[in-house]
Amino acid sequence: MINNQIITIALDCMGGDKAPQIVIEGADRIASQNFNVHFLLFGDEKKVKPIINHCRFLKGRFTLIHTDESISADEKPSIALRRFTKASMRLAIDAVKDGKADVVISAGNTGALMAIAKIVLRPLAGIDRPAIVTAIPNRQKKATVFLDMGANVECDADVLFQFAVMGQAFARSTLKIKNPTIGVLNVGSEEIKGHENVRNVANKIKNSILNKDFYGYVEGDDIAKGTVNVVVTDGFTGNITLKAIEGTAKFISGVIKDGFTSSILAKIGYLFAMNSLRQSSKTVDPRYHNGAMLVGLNGVVVKSHGSTDAFGFANAINVAISLVENKINEKITAELKQSLESIVTSSTESNLAQEIKSNHDQS
Amino acid sequence: MINNQIITIALDCMGGDKAPQIVIEGADRIASQNFNVHFLLFGDEKKVKPIINHCRFLKGRFTLIHTDESISADEKPSIALRRFTKASMRLAIDAVKDGKADVVISAGNTGALMAIAKIVLRPLAGIDRPAIVTAIPNRQKKATVFLDMGANVECDADVLFQFAVMGQAFARSTLKIKNPTIGVLNVGSEEIKGHENVRNVANKIKNSILNKDFYGYVEGDDIAKGTVNVVVTDGFTGNITLKAIEGTAKFISGVIKDGFTSSILAKIGYLFAMNSLRQSSKTVDPRYHNGAMLVGLNGVVVKSHGSTDAFGFANAINVAISLVENKINEKITAELKQSLESIVTSSTESNLAQEIKSNHDQS
Repeated sequence: MINNQIITIALDCMGGDKAPQIVIEGADRIASQNFNVHFLLFGDEKKVKPIINHCRFLKGRFTLIHTDESISADEKPSIALRRFTKASMRLAIDAVKDGKADVVISAGNTGALMAIAKIVLRPLAGIDRPAIVTAIPNRQKKATVFLDMGANVECDADVLFQFAVMGQAFARSTLKIKNPTIGVLNVGSEEIKGHENVRNVANKIKNSILNKDFYGYVEGDDIAKGTVNVVVTDGFTGNITLKAIEGTAKFISGVIKDGFTSSILAKIGYLFAMNSLRQSSKTVDPRYHNGAMLVGLNGVVVKSHGSTDAFGFANAINVAISLVENKINEKITAELKQSLESIVTSSTESNLAQEIKSNHDQS
Repeated sequence: MINNQIITIALDCMGGDKAPQIVIEGADRIASQNFNVHFLLFGDEKKVKPIINHCRFLKGRFTLIHTDESISADEKPSIALRRFTKASMRLAIDAVKDGKADVVISAGNTGALMAIAKIVLRPLAGIDRPAIVTAIPNRQKKATVFLDMGANVECDADVLFQFAVMGQAFARSTLKIKNPTIGVLNVGSEEIKGHENVRNVANKIKNSILNKDFYGYVEGDDIAKGTVNVVVTDGFTGNITLKAIEGTAKFISGVIKDGFTSSILAKIGYLFAMNSLRQSSKTVDPRYHNGAMLVGLNGVVVKSHGSTDAFGFANAINVAISLVENKINEKITAELKQSLESIVTSSTESNLAQEIKSNHDQS
């Protein structure tokens, strides 16, 4: 960090389908709007420099750190971690570890990003498993914060409880919701339903101070409905659900597109409706919601969708800036401590109540 | 069954949001197209008769069995099973048990339908857990067969293997695909990923004759892509995924609708594009794919979506007719036996190979 006002952002310039172009151009967009950012650009200077030369606003606002190495989209996380110690992604994460940057952003290999970040930055105090959290557009014209997107296949109730705390902190920082409501993803709203872990985390939340914001169980369609602000689930269900949502959105948009191009009349109709449709489809445009966080680490790590454009990447940078400005990690640590203490208190109380009752029964 | 040519269909007239109207009118639509069906209509004659009187094609093609009792959408399955022994749904299932009907269809309470059908009809020989299977529209302009939609929260590899066999039989009967390809839903395509049960069922399939149709792991977006014909998962993931897909489809359709009504120009555009859009949106219209099966029972039980209309209910009846005509249960029993025997053979072979190897090592 150069000084208190300036946020220093480490960018993995080589990650993503259209890297480095969308990364540099995304940074340039942000530089044009926000004068309190400085970029550390990690990547191959032969590829990065020609793009920087076209960017008006980046001038004097970046430091380029050259490296030949980069991690491909299909590299195994374990190999990426051990063999690619000079890769653009690795050096960008190292910059956060060394205090040279406030946040790192990559549109590259998610598995590699999580594996490296976990080893380099280590989990936050009190967090067993870092997760991946994002915001999904919903019918309330807002977004539903959703985690875990796939970092942890199996999650016990303690881990899911930590997800609830981290999800709330993410919703507060990025969506500016004061008291985000929490739902646990399940197959029905009745208390007896679902896996043991799901029932246990619901009980744990109910017995903690999080209870004031707890809605209860939610179902798959509540994500799009926006029934709650934060939906908590394990990474197996989370990853499959998120991809099913993305797949459905693409499928239906494709069907509508086919409809508009299937006849001359339909094409004319599109010309009339174009502006309104574009306006309303912003709600579901994934670029407006680009930027997931690898949450629960000693350091802020943001993941951009690999196939986004410069506009979408700029959105991920804005998410990163919000997270840094809102000191998300300090908040997570404090809130987790507070909620865990509240459970201890209430379970002590209930033990006490039980003791009194059993004394009463004996007498 | 009245004779070999006629299919007798038991209908729960009182189940579903718009029952009995959509049930009777749906039956009338089928009666107008198919002269080899006879309906047993179970329900409140005061409500059913006035609707029948408006139906031209049902005349002489049905038997009305009056009952006052019906099971509401929010009744607990356990209560529905024990207390409502004269309900329209129960009597319709009993008709299949007693050989008076070839198939039963209900748009009512899914949990109650499964609970009653399991007790009255019992699982098929070799099936540990009946499941709910349906077809979801996909980008190939076909449909992806998907199970379990939510009957079994936890499923071990044996149960998931049975789902693969039942899914194939459903795809053959309803979609007329000769050798349906199978995918196991997972968080990634690599062999090391996912839950233990998911990895175990993949190995089990690979070691059986099902291997010839096995694609491997598929991800959430492969359902809409239509990567495989049959996607197998547990009822927890299946129910959440299916509802997330439905929620997303509704959300995006709503956004498009908003776009068309947000300005005069857009409304004019809609008039031009209307016909083409309607034509192309048939692909995603859930009414065209209405009709899930409670598969793995001694008797064919079909579930219609509770909120469908007469057109959608008629589609569920067509699904039921296909299942009966294709003798789905006989096929499931035969194919399950054959595939399980193929596993035994291959594991015996591999034991033999191991024995030979270990003898070789010792000598």
